[in-house]
Amino acid sequence: MMDLAIQFKEKSSQCLYQQIYEYIRDEIRKGKLSAGEKLPSTRLLAENLQVARSTIDAAYGQLVAEGYVEAVSCRGYFVSHVEELFQFPREEREKSPAETGEPETRQNVLYDFSPHAVSLKDFPFATWKKITKNILVDANSEMFALGDAQGDVELRETIGKYLHTSRGVNCRPEQIIIGAGTDYLFMLLEKILGRHVPLAMEEPTYKRAYRIFQSFAYEILAIPMDRSGMNVEKLKKSGARAAYVMPTHQYPTGIVMPIGRRLELLKWAGEKEDRYLIEDDYDSEFRYKGKPIPSLQASDENGKVIYMGTFSKAIAPAIRVSYMVLPLRLLQIYRENCGFYASTVSRIDQRILNEFIREGHFERYLNKMRKIYRGRHDFLLSQFSSMEKDFAVSGENGGLYFLLTSRKKIPEEELILSAAEEGVRVYGISDACMGPLVDTAFKNTVLLGYGDLDEKELAEGIGLLKKSWGVC
Amino acid sequence: MMDLAIQFKEKSSQCLYQQIYEYIRDEIRKGKLSAGEKLPSTRLLAENLQVARSTIDAAYGQLVAEGYVEAVSCRGYFVSHVEELFQFPREEREKSPAETGEPETRQNVLYDFSPHAVSLKDFPFATWKKITKNILVDANSEMFALGDAQGDVELRETIGKYLHTSRGVNCRPEQIIIGAGTDYLFMLLEKILGRHVPLAMEEPTYKRAYRIFQSFAYEILAIPMDRSGMNVEKLKKSGARAAYVMPTHQYPTGIVMPIGRRLELLKWAGEKEDRYLIEDDYDSEFRYKGKPIPSLQASDENGKVIYMGTFSKAIAPAIRVSYMVLPLRLLQIYRENCGFYASTVSRIDQRILNEFIREGHFERYLNKMRKIYRGRHDFLLSQFSSMEKDFAVSGENGGLYFLLTSRKKIPEEELILSAAEEGVRVYGISDACMGPLVDTAFKNTVLLGYGDLDEKELAEGIGLLKKSWGVC
Repeated sequence: MMDLAIQFKEKSSQCLYQQIYEYIRDEIRKGKLSAGEKLPSTRLLAENLQVARSTIDAAYGQLVAEGYVEAVSCRGYFVSHVEELFQFPREEREKSPAETGEPETRQNVLYDFSPHAVSLKDFPFATWKKITKNILVDANSEMFALGDAQGDVELRETIGKYLHTSRGVNCRPEQIIIGAGTDYLFMLLEKILGRHVPLAMEEPTYKRAYRIFQSFAYEILAIPMDRSGMNVEKLKKSGARAAYVMPTHQYPTGIVMPIGRRLELLKWAGEKEDRYLIEDDYDSEFRYKGKPIPSLQASDENGKVIYMGTFSKAIAPAIRVSYMVLPLRLLQIYRENCGFYASTVSRIDQRILNEFIREGHFERYLNKMRKIYRGRHDFLLSQFSSMEKDFAVSGENGGLYFLLTSRKKIPEEELILSAAEEGVRVYGISDACMGPLVDTAFKNTVLLGYGDLDEKELAEGIGLLKKSWGVC
Repeated sequence: MMDLAIQFKEKSSQCLYQQIYEYIRDEIRKGKLSAGEKLPSTRLLAENLQVARSTIDAAYGQLVAEGYVEAVSCRGYFVSHVEELFQFPREEREKSPAETGEPETRQNVLYDFSPHAVSLKDFPFATWKKITKNILVDANSEMFALGDAQGDVELRETIGKYLHTSRGVNCRPEQIIIGAGTDYLFMLLEKILGRHVPLAMEEPTYKRAYRIFQSFAYEILAIPMDRSGMNVEKLKKSGARAAYVMPTHQYPTGIVMPIGRRLELLKWAGEKEDRYLIEDDYDSEFRYKGKPIPSLQASDENGKVIYMGTFSKAIAPAIRVSYMVLPLRLLQIYRENCGFYASTVSRIDQRILNEFIREGHFERYLNKMRKIYRGRHDFLLSQFSSMEKDFAVSGENGGLYFLLTSRKKIPEEELILSAAEEGVRVYGISDACMGPLVDTAFKNTVLLGYGDLDEKELAEGIGLLKKSWGVC
């Protein structure tokens, strides 16, 4: 039996039991106490160290709990057989995040016409706070429990009603799945549609969705567009099983898919049982002329459309609530394949959002934002009128950006670069292309978003753009 | 040119423009107006219907926007070629959710000893509300913007510190990924580890994780356990590339993996570059004897452990915040493969949680709950003492449940059924098995959770159990 030469540290903040435990543990780790060796009995060690026997009991207990030592009844404590402590060479330290981060291109940007920007300045923070406060006043432990995997039924009813009224979507609350963001819902969709789906996407398309679908085992089929949207003849020949489309306001072309094309797509999907259309209705709330364009799902008679939407644009990006409406057949598959995935949105957040919509704040906020965005839209259009002989405008009347196409065929890169020299950031269609930009209709085109720029900023930004592009 | 016999509805809530739009749209849908037909000019129709010309303009404008009608400059408006309206047979109405829901087994349950239950009665709602209120007072639009994909750096720093202090985890905030629940993080992990991973799991294991991994294209390899945890010899022969383990408190066996087995696992993982250990540290906060058992990650010298934890148990299930610590090599892969997936937790929720931890409320709450759970644990142990000749207790000293093994070899099903007859719900090990329950050590065993039962309920529940099992 070995002798344990434990030197207690004076004035140590560690209690005796901790010091004894650590000493023995480290001796075992260093190999100084080897497997099978018997430790002194608790009585003996207590005497030697002049500490209470319960202190030794506690230290040995911890060593047993962590597996350094084994207690053999009636015999005592023995050092366990511990796989010798091997040392791997330390991994080379990898690059720091700053080194690997995306290139910093934002420097010296005075005006950023990002097509993805939204304005948060007018968000009714006070109302949101008040609702949060009220919800928390009534909060009980039930609200802190895990809720329904698809989302709380009250919120699903509210969203269902909203979608029916504003988008013509036909569904029951059971068909709605609430998730923390569209990216998450795409991940669920992968589990529902299966792992190896040949998926048609409009070219150009929403690159973020493309990157996500591409990170799945999906075969992405880039289908060219004509002025009505995805080319159905090419879709038919592609062998796709599903098609991802943005019929209300295609990103980035701004094309509104006419009813004829919609019905062709629905017919295509109806021809085989497992064909589906994924409708991403990402910014349908903002339409500045006439009534809103109904959703594709509204024309769907046969359960072929997976409808997706989000509150990230309409309320705020930080509101991590998106929704997906599944056809009944896919709902069944969802329940079997991933109905057990826990909801990703807290019940408290669901309740706050539900109240915000139910009490009419959402509608009021949307109306306010529509007015603000329409003002910017109209103002920007008016600024473009003097550029008419140099640039053609398209994609207007909805969403939060325009397209400007150079009639003089100045290439996209050149437009972007000369704008950047004046401190203005505009965006190219190429960014939204999966392959090389071949569609001549969208060559020489840039995107200008106005979501987060007020009239003064728009006027100044446009002034700089005109200067940089040499238009008066 | 056709004549449009629009009958305006009297006292209709719809405005005239809407009625004209709908009339023409429906005529086109029914095929009564066919492709290429010219609509009356706006001037003529306005005269005929005795309405303002701007009303007709608006109606035609909407028809054009939705693609029912085309405007040909200098010639007028023509009905578009619309794919004929086909009618599919309506899908058979599927079973209502009530019909397809899980079997209702909760009726007549007086005491539910669920091993997954947690107590929410003692949650400091007032504190949570106060923090929320304060956060929202300071809320600015930046907080409603989309945050970092991995989670806000402040919260990651806080979690990193907490994990280092309480679990010995060694990591930098950059290695932490915050997500809305462990299920979501598993989904991310699939994108990081790849699609076809042969994954070893302990048999029996946490069934929820099993179902999720199984829903991936993973080949699940059930590895038998001995009293130290996963059998490493069997693991070596299995061909697994990764192993999912719960070293601190294995579910459902309650086994604490000793240091020797941990080092064997780390050695196995170290033998090949792409081998990893997934450590699910789901309830490590609750340990009632000695110091907490350190995490497996704490012993990892070579970046082989993916550490996962959650606030769902330690705070409340509705707090949809879990975290994952990635080794540097996998962090790189995460950034490339799914660094663009938007965060699933709202910044507001992240801020609230951060404050809750930083201001010491989390620690206080944990201490309080440890005391409460320890009380229940000790009380239940004392109740079992009179059953000692009939039942062996295991898995004590940590977590929120015990195992009771019948010495008289009464089968699990029988124990569960006779308990149910007295209105008491206990849980079988079979539920946690991927295959048939073969391990004789865990035959005739039930799980008893005490997370959400107070002493009175425990006493009454145990009384009924003793009665049902015929022990005095």
